[in-house]
Amino acid sequence: MARRYDSSTTTFSPEGRLHQVEYAIEAINNAGTCVGILASDGIVMASERRITSGLLAPAKTSEKTYQLCGHASCNVAGLTADANILIDQARLRAGRYAYQYQEPIPIEQLVEYVCNYKQFYTQRGGLRPFGVAFLFAGYDEQYGFQLYQSDPSGNYSGWKATVIGANNQAGKSLLKTEYKTGEEKIPNIQEALMLAVKVLNKTMDGTTAAAAAEKMELYTMTRNETGECVHHILNQEEASKVIDAVEAEAASAGDS
Amino acid sequence: MARRYDSSTTTFSPEGRLHQVEYAIEAINNAGTCVGILASDGIVMASERRITSGLLAPAKTSEKTYQLCGHASCNVAGLTADANILIDQARLRAGRYAYQYQEPIPIEQLVEYVCNYKQFYTQRGGLRPFGVAFLFAGYDEQYGFQLYQSDPSGNYSGWKATVIGANNQAGKSLLKTEYKTGEEKIPNIQEALMLAVKVLNKTMDGTTAAAAAEKMELYTMTRNETGECVHHILNQEEASKVIDAVEAEAASAGDS
Amino acid sequence: MARRYDSSTTTFSPEGRLHQVEYAIEAINNAGTCVGILASDGIVMASERRITSGLLAPAKTSEKTYQLCGHASCNVAGLTADANILIDQARLRAGRYAYQYQEPIPIEQLVEYVCNYKQFYTQRGGLRPFGVAFLFAGYDEQYGFQLYQSDPSGNYSGWKATVIGANNQAGKSLLKTEYKTGEEKIPNIQEALMLAVKVLNKTMDGTTAAAAAEKMELYTMTRNETGECVHHILNQEEASKVIDAVEAEAASAGDS
Amino acid sequence: MARRYDSSTTTFSPEGRLHQVEYAIEAINNAGTCVGILASDGIVMASERRITSGLLAPAKTSEKTYQLCGHASCNVAGLTADANILIDQARLRAGRYAYQYQEPIPIEQLVEYVCNYKQFYTQRGGLRPFGVAFLFAGYDEQYGFQLYQSDPSGNYSGWKATVIGANNQAGKSLLKTEYKTGEEKIPNIQEALMLAVKVLNKTMDGTTAAAAAEKMELYTMTRNETGECVHHILNQEEASKVIDAVEAEAASAGDS
Amino acid sequence: MARRYDSSTTTFSPEGRLHQVEYAIEAINNAGTCVGILASDGIVMASERRITSGLLAPAKTSEKTYQLCGHASCNVAGLTADANILIDQARLRAGRYAYQYQEPIPIEQLVEYVCNYKQFYTQRGGLRPFGVAFLFAGYDEQYGFQLYQSDPSGNYSGWKATVIGANNQAGKSLLKTEYKTGEEKIPNIQEALMLAVKVLNKTMDGTTAAAAAEKMELYTMTRNETGECVHHILNQEEASKVIDAVEAEAASAGDS
Amino acid sequence: MARRYDSSTTTFSPEGRLHQVEYAIEAINNAGTCVGILASDGIVMASERRITSGLLAPAKTSEKTYQLCGHASCNVAGLTADANILIDQARLRAGRYAYQYQEPIPIEQLVEYVCNYKQFYTQRGGLRPFGVAFLFAGYDEQYGFQLYQSDPSGNYSGWKATVIGANNQAGKSLLKTEYKTGEEKIPNIQEALMLAVKVLNKTMDGTTAAAAAEKMELYTMTRNETGECVHHILNQEEASKVIDAVEAEAASAGDS
Amino acid sequence: MARRYDSSTTTFSPEGRLHQVEYAIEAINNAGTCVGILASDGIVMASERRITSGLLAPAKTSEKTYQLCGHASCNVAGLTADANILIDQARLRAGRYAYQYQEPIPIEQLVEYVCNYKQFYTQRGGLRPFGVAFLFAGYDEQYGFQLYQSDPSGNYSGWKATVIGANNQAGKSLLKTEYKTGEEKIPNIQEALMLAVKVLNKTMDGTTAAAAAEKMELYTMTRNETGECVHHILNQEEASKVIDAVEAEAASAGDS
Repeated sequence: MARRYDSSTTTFSPEGRLHQVEYAIEAINNAGTCVGILASDGIVMASERRITSGLLAPAKTSEKTYQLCGHASCNVAGLTADANILIDQARLRAGRYAYQYQEPIPIEQLVEYVCNYKQFYTQRGGLRPFGVAFLFAGYDEQYGFQLYQSDPSGNYSGWKATVIGANNQAGKSLLKTEYKTGEEKIPNIQEALMLAVKVLNKTMDGTTAAAAAEKMELYTMTRNETGECVHHILNQEEASKVIDAVEAEAASAGDS
Repeated sequence: MARRYDSSTTTFSPEGRLHQVEYAIEAINNAGTCVGILASDGIVMASERRITSGLLAPAKTSEKTYQLCGHASCNVAGLTADANILIDQARLRAGRYAYQYQEPIPIEQLVEYVCNYKQFYTQRGGLRPFGVAFLFAGYDEQYGFQLYQSDPSGNYSGWKATVIGANNQAGKSLLKTEYKTGEEKIPNIQEALMLAVKVLNKTMDGTTAAAAAEKMELYTMTRNETGECVHHILNQEEASKVIDAVEAEAASAGDS
Repeated sequence: MARRYDSSTTTFSPEGRLHQVEYAIEAINNAGTCVGILASDGIVMASERRITSGLLAPAKTSEKTYQLCGHASCNVAGLTADANILIDQARLRAGRYAYQYQEPIPIEQLVEYVCNYKQFYTQRGGLRPFGVAFLFAGYDEQYGFQLYQSDPSGNYSGWKATVIGANNQAGKSLLKTEYKTGEEKIPNIQEALMLAVKVLNKTMDGTTAAAAAEKMELYTMTRNETGECVHHILNQEEASKVIDAVEAEAASAGDS
Repeated sequence: MARRYDSSTTTFSPEGRLHQVEYAIEAINNAGTCVGILASDGIVMASERRITSGLLAPAKTSEKTYQLCGHASCNVAGLTADANILIDQARLRAGRYAYQYQEPIPIEQLVEYVCNYKQFYTQRGGLRPFGVAFLFAGYDEQYGFQLYQSDPSGNYSGWKATVIGANNQAGKSLLKTEYKTGEEKIPNIQEALMLAVKVLNKTMDGTTAAAAAEKMELYTMTRNETGECVHHILNQEEASKVIDAVEAEAASAGDS
Repeated sequence: MARRYDSSTTTFSPEGRLHQVEYAIEAINNAGTCVGILASDGIVMASERRITSGLLAPAKTSEKTYQLCGHASCNVAGLTADANILIDQARLRAGRYAYQYQEPIPIEQLVEYVCNYKQFYTQRGGLRPFGVAFLFAGYDEQYGFQLYQSDPSGNYSGWKATVIGANNQAGKSLLKTEYKTGEEKIPNIQEALMLAVKVLNKTMDGTTAAAAAEKMELYTMTRNETGECVHHILNQEEASKVIDAVEAEAASAGDS
Repeated sequence: MARRYDSSTTTFSPEGRLHQVEYAIEAINNAGTCVGILASDGIVMASERRITSGLLAPAKTSEKTYQLCGHASCNVAGLTADANILIDQARLRAGRYAYQYQEPIPIEQLVEYVCNYKQFYTQRGGLRPFGVAFLFAGYDEQYGFQLYQSDPSGNYSGWKATVIGANNQAGKSLLKTEYKTGEEKIPNIQEALMLAVKVLNKTMDGTTAAAAAEKMELYTMTRNETGECVHHILNQEEASKVIDAVEAEAASAGDS
Repeated sequence: MARRYDSSTTTFSPEGRLHQVEYAIEAINNAGTCVGILASDGIVMASERRITSGLLAPAKTSEKTYQLCGHASCNVAGLTADANILIDQARLRAGRYAYQYQEPIPIEQLVEYVCNYKQFYTQRGGLRPFGVAFLFAGYDEQYGFQLYQSDPSGNYSGWKATVIGANNQAGKSLLKTEYKTGEEKIPNIQEALMLAVKVLNKTMDGTTAAAAAEKMELYTMTRNETGECVHHILNQEEASKVIDAVEAEAASAGDS
C-alpha cells in the first residue's frame, strides 16, 4: 500500500520522503562511476566508460565529460539524454552571463542555476526529475578551483574530493583515507590522477589493467601560464601511463 | 482506506487535515535542528551541520545560514534544493522593495511574502508543498530585531526564542526554562550563543564536545556603531570557545 | 465506497453534498473560537489565542484580528496561511474601491468579494477550498456597524452576535439567552465585551482566570467624535479588568 | 460498480444520464422551498427562510430574493455561494444589454444567458455544476409578466405557477388544484399571495402560524401607474396579515 | 472489466467503439420523438411534448422547434440545455455567413458546421459529447427543401423522412411503408402532416386523441409567393384538425 | 491486468504496442469496404454503401468519396464525423498551397500533411486517435496518377491497388491474383472498374446483383483532353452496367 | 504490482528505470533491421523492407531511408508515423542552420537536435516517447563521414558500424568479428555493402536469395569529385549483384 506514494513526483510520503527523487537517485547509483579530486594546481575528474566497443566511433566529444564554458566542465552519471538538456542550459547561462556582465560566471552561480532547474522538475505534476548527477569542475577569480556535486533533487555541495555513480560509497571511503585534507599536503595533478585511478579500480571491480585504459576517461583542468583554463582529456597512451604507475605503486606496496 | 486523502495536496481529509502539508512537516522534523534566540543586542541562530566530512570544501557560502538582504538572514531546515528557490524569491523581493521605495523592506513583510509563496503550493493540484522550514532573523527601524519561524504550510509566527528541525520539542522545552522572558533579564549575544549551544547539545545527542564545533554553525546578527547590520558566522575557533564555555559551566554546575 | 466522492473538490456526492467543503469546515471547528457581538456604539470581537508561550514575540500585528481598511476588520478561525491570502485580497479590493470611487467600500460588498473568491475554490478541479472562516466587523454610512460571518463554501450572513470555531454551538446558545435583541436593550461596548468573555469562558473550558487574559484577544471597533473608526485590541491590563468583572459578576450571581 | 460514472461531471452513464447534474439537483431538493405564481397584475414569489435566529442581523438584502435589474428578480434554492456568482453574471448581463441597446433586456434572454452559463459547468472536466435552482420573475414589453424556473443542468421553462426546493412535488400538486389557469380567473396579487402561503404551509410542515411570518419571505412584483416595476418584500406585519387571512379561510372552510 | 473503457470520452474500446458517444445516443433514445418529412411543397416536423402541465406558461418560443435563420429550423431531441449551446452556434454561423457573403448559408454547410462542433467534444479529454440529436429543415437555392438528421457523434445524413428520439425504429418502419418515395407521389404538406401524426401516434403509445393535440408540436416550413420561407407552428385548433383527420381516416380504414 | 495499457492513448504496452491506435484500426475493420485501383488512364475507387434506405435523400455530396482539390479525392472508411475534420484540413492545405505557390500541391505532400495531423492525436494525452482510414487518389505532374492508403496511426503507403475496411484481407488477396502488375498489362479504367466490383462482391458477401448497384459507389478519376482531372461518381445506370458486365463474365467463366 | 510504474511516462520505477522508454525500445526491437557501416570512402546503410507486395506502388521516396539535407540521411526503425515528425524537424533544423550561418549544419549538432526533441517526450506527462530509432549518416568538413545511432530515450552515440531493429544483437556480434576496426583495413564502399548484406542475411533468417533483393534496401553515401555528397539507393539490379556476390563468397568459403 505504501507504494502508492511512489507514483507521483509531486507528493510526500507519510515519512516526508519524495520517492520519485529517490528512484531517480537509484538510477544514478547504477550508472558509471565518476571521481572528482581537487588538486593543488587544478582539478581531476575520472569516470568509467561503460559501453566500450571497437565499433564505436572515436569520440568527437567525450561521452562523460562536457565543457560548459571556458572555465567550467562537468562529468555526468545517469541518463545521457537528460544530461544533454541540462548541459545546454548551463552553456546558455554561462554564455549569457559572460555577454551581459563581460566576465566569466562565478562557478557556484552556474551550479546553482542548473540545480534550480532540476528542482523545478521535482515539485510539479506531469514532470519527472532529471535522472542525472553531475560533478562540476571550475575556476573563478574569487575562489580558485572548485569542485561541486549535484543530484536529481537539485541539491549541490562543494567538495575537495568526491565520487558519484555506482559504488560511490566504496569510492568515498577510499578517498577519506587517501586524500590528505591538510592544506600543506594537498595532492598535485599527477597525484590526484593516480588517486582517481585507484578509486575507479576499486569501484569498477574485475577490470584488468589492460582494459582499464579504455574503460577510464581521465580529465584534468589546469591553468596555463597566461591564466587560461586548460581542459584536457588524457588519450589512451597518457591514461595507460597513469594506470601503470598506480599498478607499479600497488605492486611495490605489496612487496614491502 | 483513509490513506487515500494523503495522495493529493489539494484535498482535505474528513478530519479537516491537509496530509501533504503534514508530511512535508515530517520531512523537516528529520532535518538538522536550528535554534534562534533574540538577544538584547542582536539575534543568534545556531544550526546542526548534518553532513560533515573532511572532504567537503571549505564552505564559500554557508549551507544552513543565508543572508537575504542587508538586514535579514535565514536558517534552513529541510530540503536545501527547495530552500534555494524560496531564498531566491526572498532576495528578489527585498531587492525590489529597496529599489522601489528606497528603504529596506520591513522584516515581517519579507517573511509574509515568502510564506504566501509557500501557501500557493499547498492549495493547487500538480504541486507539492515546499519541504522546508525557516528561521528568519532581521532588523528594521520600527520593531528592531525580530525572529520569525515558518513552516511548509505558509504559517509564520514571531518568537523570542524557538527551535525547528529534529527534536525541536526537546529544544523548545529547554528554552522555556532557560530563556528569561522578563524585559530586564533578556540575554546578550554571548549568553544567547551559549544558550543556543546548550539547546543543540540536547537535540544532537551523542556528540562529543570535540566534534561539536565542526557540527554546529553559530551565527550572530548585530549592529555596528554606524547602525549597519553585521552578519557573522563564527569560525571553528570562535565556536569552540563558546562550546567550551558551555561545557565549563555545565561542569561547574555539576560540581556545585 | 461512498468515500470516493470525498476526494475531489469538484464533485457532488449522491446526496448532493460537497464533501471537501464540509471537511474544510471541519478544520475550522477545531480552530480557536471567535465571538463577534454588535453593540449599540460599536462592535466587539473576541478570540481564543491557542498558542501561548512566553517565548512568543510580543505580537506586532495580531494573530487573530486583522484590519482590512479604515472601516473594517476581521477575525480568523482556521488556517492562518490561507487567511493571509484572502486578507490580502480584501485589503486590495478595499483600497482599489476607495481609489476608484473616492469613498469607503460598503461592508457587504467587501464581504461578498472575499466570499466569491472563496467560492471559486470550491468549484474547480486542482484547487482545494480555503480552510478558513471569518468574522467581519465594519461600519459604513448606509447601515452603520455590521457583523458578518463567512465559511469555506463562500456563504456569508449578517449577525447581531455569533460564534465561529471550536464549540461554536455552545457559544451560540449562550448568546441566544444572554444577548438582548430588542432594540432598546442592545448592549453597549462594555457589556458586549463582558458577554464575549463569558462566551469564550464557556467554549475554552478549563482555563483559569489568570491564564485567560493571555489566552483571549479582545477587540473593539468604535467611532470617535470626528466619526472615524477606532480599532482597538485590549492590552493585558484592560483585558484582565474585563475578565475580572465577569468573574465578579458570576460570583455575585452565585451569591444571590 | 455503476457508481464510478458518478465521479466525473463530464461523462454519461451507460443509461445516458449525467449523475453529477442529478446530484446537484438532489442538493436543491433539500433546500428551502420557493413558490412562484403569475398573477393578473404582477408576480408573487414566496420562499422558506431556513435559518432563523434572533441573532441574525435584520437583512439588508434578502437572503432568498435578489433583484437582477429594474424589471427582473429571482428566488434562490440551493447553495447561496454558487447563486451569488450567477446573480452577478445576470446583473452584469442585464446592465450591459441596457447600456448597449438602451432598452431593458428581454426576460427570456436574461434567463437563457444564466442557463447557458450553467450548462458550461456540466460539460467540462475540472468543474462541478452549480448547485442552485432559480425562479426568475420579470416583466418586459413584449410578453408582460413572466415566470421562469431553471435547474443546475441549465434547463429552463416558463410557468404560470411552480415550486422548487424541498417538497416541490407536494407544492406543485397543490398548485395544480388551486391555481385557476383559465384566462378569466387568473388570481390577482392578493389571491396569489394567499395561494403561495398555502403552498408553503404544506411544504414546511409543522410550523405554527406564529412562527410562519418569520420563516416565510413573501415578495411581489407589480407595476405602478408610471409603468415601472415595483419590487416589494413584505415586512413582518404585512406577511402576518396574509398568513392570518389564509388561516381564517382554512378555519371557515373547516366550519362549513 | 470491460466497463472501464466507458469512463472516458477520448478512448476507443478494444472493439473500436466510443462508449461515451453511444451513451449520449442512449440519452436521446429516451427523449421525446421527432419526425421529419420532406413534402412536395415544404417540410413537416412533428415532435412529442413530454412535459405538459396546465401551469406551464404559453410557450413564447417553442420547446422543441427552433428557427436558426430565415431559411432553416431544427427540432431537438435530448438535453435542451446542450441544444441551446449548439443552436446559438448555428444562428451565429448563419448570421455571419449572410453578413460576409450577402447570401443565405447553404443548408448542408450550416449542418456540417454544427456537426463538426459536436465532433470536437467526442475527441478531447475533459469534455463530454453533446447529449442532443437534431432534425434540420431548410431551403436553399441549389437543392430546395432539405431535411437532415445529426447525432451526438457529429455524424449527419440527408433524409426524405426520418425519426429521432424514443421509439425511432418503430417510427422509421412506419415511414418506410407509408412514405412514397417515387418522385410523382411525394406527399404535399397536408399529407405529410397527417403522416407525421400517424408516426407520433405510434411512438407515443397510449395517448388519447384529446390529449394528443396538446402533446404534439406540428411545424411546417413552406415558401410564400414571394419565395420567402414561412415557418409555422400549428396552434391547438389547427393541430386538432389534423389529428382528427388522421383518426377519421383510421376509422374509415377500419370500416372498410 | 495487461488491459490497463489500453486505456490511455499516450502509453506503450510492455510489448511496445499502442493499443488505442490498434483499437481505432479495429473500428475501421468494421467499416464499409473501399477498393482503390490504379488504372493506365486514371484511378478507380469503389466503396460499399452501408446505410441504404429509400428514405435517404438523394446524396448531394457523396457519403464515401470526397474531392479534396482539383486533382485529388479520397475514400473514407470509419467514423464519418472524424473524417470530416481531416477532409477540411486537407482541403485547406491544398487551397493554401495553391494560393502560395500558384501550382497544385503534390499528392504525397497532401497525404503526409493529413497523416502528420493524425499522428499528433496518437502521442498526446487527452486526445484519441482519429477513427478513420483513407484511400487518396490524385494526380500530379511529377508522378502522374497515385493511390495512397493511410490508417489512424498516421502511417501511409503508396499502392497500385489496395483495399481498406471490412474484409480487406480477402479483398487484397483477390487483387493480388487479378491485378496484373506488369507495366504492359496495367488495366484501363473500364477493367479496373470491373475488378473493383469483383472485389466488393467478395467482401460484401450475400448481396444480390440487383441490390449491388445501390450499395456500391463507383468513382473514377481521369484526365480530359485539356489535361484537367475529371472526378466522376457513376450513377445507378452506369454502375449497374459495370456490375452486369462482371456478372456476365463470371457466368461465362462458369460456362467454360 | 510493480507494473503500475509502467503506465506513465513521467515516473521512475523504484529501480530507477523509465518503463515507457523501455517499452518504446521494445517496439523498435520488433521493427525491420537497419545496418550502418562506415566505409573508407563513404557510408553504407542497409535495411530490411518488411512489407513487400507486388501491389505496392514503386516507391517515390524510400520507406526506410530519408535524406535530411544535402549532407545527411537517416534510416528508420520503428513507427513510421512517428519518424515523419522527427524527420520534418531535422530537415527544418538543417535548412534553418544553412540559412542562418550559410554553411551546412555539423552532423552531430543535427543529431543532438533530434535527440533533445525526443528527450522532451520522455519527461513530461500527457506525452509518450517517440517509438522510433534512427541511424544517421552524414558528412561534414570537420569530422568527415559519421554514423550515429539514436533510440527513443534521446540517447545517441557515434559508431563505425552498428545495427538497430530486430535481432540487432546477432547483427552486432557479426559486425564485431567481420568489421576491421584498424585504420588501415577499413572497408571501402563495396566491401561495406557486402558486409551489410551479410548482416541482414543473418538477422532476416529464412529469406532466399531471390527474395532478398526485394526485401533489402541498400543505400550508399559517397562524395563525388566536386566534393558533393551523393545519396544513392541501389536499384533491384544493383542490389542483386551485391547479394549474389555475398552468396558466391559464402559458397566459395563453404568450398574451401
